[in-house]
Amino acid sequence: MAIMTSSPTYLPVLERVAEEIGHTPGRGRSADYIPALAARDARAFGMAVAELDGTVYGVGDWREPFSAQSITKVFTLALDLAREGDELWEHVGREPSGNPFNSLVQLEYENGIPRNPFINAGALVVTDRLQTRTGDAAGELLGFLRAESGNPELDFDEEVAASETVNGDRNAALAHFMASYGNIDNPVPVLLEQYFRQCSITASCADLALATRFLARHGLRADGTRLLASRQAKQVNAVMLTCGTYDAAGDFAYRVGLPGKSGVGGGIIAVVPGRCALCVWSPGLDERGNSVAGVAALDRFTTLTDLSVF
Amino acid sequence: MAIMTSSPTYLPVLERVAEEIGHTPGRGRSADYIPALAARDARAFGMAVAELDGTVYGVGDWREPFSAQSITKVFTLALDLAREGDELWEHVGREPSGNPFNSLVQLEYENGIPRNPFINAGALVVTDRLQTRTGDAAGELLGFLRAESGNPELDFDEEVAASETVNGDRNAALAHFMASYGNIDNPVPVLLEQYFRQCSITASCADLALATRFLARHGLRADGTRLLASRQAKQVNAVMLTCGTYDAAGDFAYRVGLPGKSGVGGGIIAVVPGRCALCVWSPGLDERGNSVAGVAALDRFTTLTDLSVF
Amino acid sequence: MAIMTSSPTYLPVLERVAEEIGHTPGRGRSADYIPALAARDARAFGMAVAELDGTVYGVGDWREPFSAQSITKVFTLALDLAREGDELWEHVGREPSGNPFNSLVQLEYENGIPRNPFINAGALVVTDRLQTRTGDAAGELLGFLRAESGNPELDFDEEVAASETVNGDRNAALAHFMASYGNIDNPVPVLLEQYFRQCSITASCADLALATRFLARHGLRADGTRLLASRQAKQVNAVMLTCGTYDAAGDFAYRVGLPGKSGVGGGIIAVVPGRCALCVWSPGLDERGNSVAGVAALDRFTTLTDLSVF
Amino acid sequence: MAIMTSSPTYLPVLERVAEEIGHTPGRGRSADYIPALAARDARAFGMAVAELDGTVYGVGDWREPFSAQSITKVFTLALDLAREGDELWEHVGREPSGNPFNSLVQLEYENGIPRNPFINAGALVVTDRLQTRTGDAAGELLGFLRAESGNPELDFDEEVAASETVNGDRNAALAHFMASYGNIDNPVPVLLEQYFRQCSITASCADLALATRFLARHGLRADGTRLLASRQAKQVNAVMLTCGTYDAAGDFAYRVGLPGKSGVGGGIIAVVPGRCALCVWSPGLDERGNSVAGVAALDRFTTLTDLSVF
Repeated sequence: MAIMTSSPTYLPVLERVAEEIGHTPGRGRSADYIPALAARDARAFGMAVAELDGTVYGVGDWREPFSAQSITKVFTLALDLAREGDELWEHVGREPSGNPFNSLVQLEYENGIPRNPFINAGALVVTDRLQTRTGDAAGELLGFLRAESGNPELDFDEEVAASETVNGDRNAALAHFMASYGNIDNPVPVLLEQYFRQCSITASCADLALATRFLARHGLRADGTRLLASRQAKQVNAVMLTCGTYDAAGDFAYRVGLPGKSGVGGGIIAVVPGRCALCVWSPGLDERGNSVAGVAALDRFTTLTDLSVF
Repeated sequence: MAIMTSSPTYLPVLERVAEEIGHTPGRGRSADYIPALAARDARAFGMAVAELDGTVYGVGDWREPFSAQSITKVFTLALDLAREGDELWEHVGREPSGNPFNSLVQLEYENGIPRNPFINAGALVVTDRLQTRTGDAAGELLGFLRAESGNPELDFDEEVAASETVNGDRNAALAHFMASYGNIDNPVPVLLEQYFRQCSITASCADLALATRFLARHGLRADGTRLLASRQAKQVNAVMLTCGTYDAAGDFAYRVGLPGKSGVGGGIIAVVPGRCALCVWSPGLDERGNSVAGVAALDRFTTLTDLSVF
Repeated sequence: MAIMTSSPTYLPVLERVAEEIGHTPGRGRSADYIPALAARDARAFGMAVAELDGTVYGVGDWREPFSAQSITKVFTLALDLAREGDELWEHVGREPSGNPFNSLVQLEYENGIPRNPFINAGALVVTDRLQTRTGDAAGELLGFLRAESGNPELDFDEEVAASETVNGDRNAALAHFMASYGNIDNPVPVLLEQYFRQCSITASCADLALATRFLARHGLRADGTRLLASRQAKQVNAVMLTCGTYDAAGDFAYRVGLPGKSGVGGGIIAVVPGRCALCVWSPGLDERGNSVAGVAALDRFTTLTDLSVF
Repeated sequence: MAIMTSSPTYLPVLERVAEEIGHTPGRGRSADYIPALAARDARAFGMAVAELDGTVYGVGDWREPFSAQSITKVFTLALDLAREGDELWEHVGREPSGNPFNSLVQLEYENGIPRNPFINAGALVVTDRLQTRTGDAAGELLGFLRAESGNPELDFDEEVAASETVNGDRNAALAHFMASYGNIDNPVPVLLEQYFRQCSITASCADLALATRFLARHGLRADGTRLLASRQAKQVNAVMLTCGTYDAAGDFAYRVGLPGKSGVGGGIIAVVPGRCALCVWSPGLDERGNSVAGVAALDRFTTLTDLSVF
């Protein structure tokens, strides 16, 4: 578990945000397509900040583990970019999708090249490529998250992974469809297993804020080694800002003004370049799949701190 | 004409960028649908920086007037937002379009509400609303640009406006289509005339960098009065970053990392919040309608200065 | 007014159909976008048969005039084909649209060539071409209908035409959009006036069954002269069968099994090649714009007579 | 093998058609995605007529077996309709698709209900339902074709079926996608195997004309028993006419004027209700997947005989 090591610069702000959000009624609904997600209380709330030096602190349920889901797409992207470099962008775009997050329409018009790495189709391509390069994409991801968070207990949630598999026809359709264009290398069942395991990773706000820290540090990992070049870290931030919250990326940029990535487990990570990384969690989702209280909390945070990139 | 008033912080960088860009072959093609645009040399190049205090300087053809075209959409948006506030967002969205810039498809699926204020349909809505509030949207815009640039000679190019009118069937289709959903108030011919006049404004890199300065100053105009609240200026920057370069917004964010807005005249404005405003111009366009040398120059500029927001 | 001249072969069937349909509850809703259409009783019902020799008879409100609307598209098509021949098909397709009847989506993907002559976009193209060839498309159409029906009192309904004009933004959008691809020759306001006048023609089931007779007679007009070659008349029937009832053409073929064309005034014409022409009218429409009782009556008619083309 | 049993009414016409077609240059290209299809000579040509009494005769390569491919969709539809009746239409539509034959777009907009039984998605649904009702959809189909053609040697081509499987990602995508909407009952691999086996059946023009005969006989099988009610047989013919030739159904109706169904093996079956059934074969395809010489031959046939339904 992460430990606080220096002065918590933004703790008073977090406390004020938590108090304001605590009074907000109507926090959306938990994702209902996976039993383990549906069971979470839509009103839970936690928020954590990880500063550049590894100081981490938070409010509310900030140490409570939850299902990271699509938040993991950021780390998988970084891990593959670190290995593959710009060649990746021949297989996945970096434009906002302008459509709901699992749309097949654009894939068809654009010959099997997904719009960006954060829609499901794009994440399948990135996972496929990391799998080809490592032989164990999900294991690679888990190792990275354990190292960055300093939490060796992070793990897959096999029950959640199994639920995804049961409900996985749409992702199977996406994978087969891209395979028909030659844009998937691994057998679809292998790919789906890797993909669902990644999504199932359980972690807390503290863990994920720490793991996101390398993007605030322009590519430097917790141990001081470099995962990404500074230029690449900025590019990942740019993709998060334009594509990180499904078809609400414009609204998120408008309200929050930070690179961010959400998951249907109710978590959102965000980056203040050169300053800190954040993670907020609250399971109630809006109709576009983003945490209602999570977006509101980040909105308040950047308003109070003036830390928006704009 | 703008005058340099203090030390030109970024002039050495501009000079280096201009030299590097000067050696770039293959700079795309000038827009060919308006004779006055097609006549410009695709290899012309200018770039200007306006600092917060009004210092302005540049390289190459930075004092050469060109057709501002869609760059004016940013100012029209700001002028209407200043009057109308958030009610505007009930009539136009702020999500990337994910489609070519004059697509009718999304308009149809989304009941006549354009995706964002920077696609043509959205700019028509904003112009329509500014027209309703001022009775002369184009005149309002011209007055603003003259005041901010300190250049009273800025004007419409009636020849360009007339060319647009002649070729204006697609914009007429957009306007009638939105009118069929009740999202246009003024008669379509009146609206189109206002819209085409706006687009026809001729200005230089120096003029437009100065006029963009209020977005780097969080809403403060040249004379120190406030056009937009700080919150609103940041929001306009956010919309520029996610939607400002047609369907290449993700790529622009990835490469340049600044809020920016391009026009088919070959100009691009960009904002470094709290630091400066930029304008670059080169008429050769890529297949998505953005200046080839312009994007390359901004890419080099943020790489050399590390001024990307990410 | 048409007069019965020989034995009414199908009169007993019509009487049985009328009786059965009379007991059908829930007949849909009258079109509400034009006041004059909305005012019609959704439960009115008439049906007429015109035999090859000009014998005409009917049941219910078969002599009651109603707004022909899109039914006129068949006659405009025939009149232009008679003049222009196959060159027309370079400007309009003959494939079912597979989408709601005034969709802009396919127009965009298919570069301004409408799918078929019976969607609004296609009818605008056909009207435009007939206008170019005659200088008065609507007058040409009216003259033809008067001659074929033997009813010199047929006329435009100026009130309906004016209502269309007021509500005509969507058709204006279609026309301007196709003009942007070079597929419209006349000025859009001229074209729209011609188009709306055509649609406004008021006629009874008797009139329209007689006017449709040339399609059952393989191209021969009432006076024995030839409007279309036999081959062309069959082709018009084929286009009616595959495209005549908006996006319900498959269902209409399945249930009725005759070439037919519906209008939002509640009328439907149908052709039994080599036998007779029919027209049925009842203003209540289903959600796809076809007369509920009209389709049901034709369904019963072909079931009882075994006159489906299949 | 079928045997001629009475006077061959249309043999002189077939001979004339074959002669004319034989002089046609440029007959398209054989399907290239399956090696066994690509290997066929694009210039082969055969055509057969089966009269109501079982008389069968032909010209050219009319006894040469070829890969039936999508032609089998007609028989699978009839076999399922015979068992299930109208309930089938809750799971598949009967409207033309208006899009290329394996499009996913409409499936997404229409919640997993394919447009009609002759696009791949629709045929997968019909096969799935027949599989549920029989436990061996492909075997059921083969038995039917053997019985109707009187040719016990008809069989699957396992090499072709295996080729489809290898290249089957797109159909797997379709099946998983519909399964995600609950519109597929069987496991996707089971369904695909059944589907590919059906498509692989090899038969000659003689065989397929005889097998299609029940549709010209309003539902009566070769042995005089009834597969479909007369009403149902007409409905299958209607669906063939509006949906049987991919996105060229309107053109096929316009040119040929008969219910027909094509396959990428180069075969086309057609029905003259109450008269005869036809099958034509020539492997060269146009860009929409229909046999070039096959469509031309049917066009000539109906022109010479005046047997179009219009």
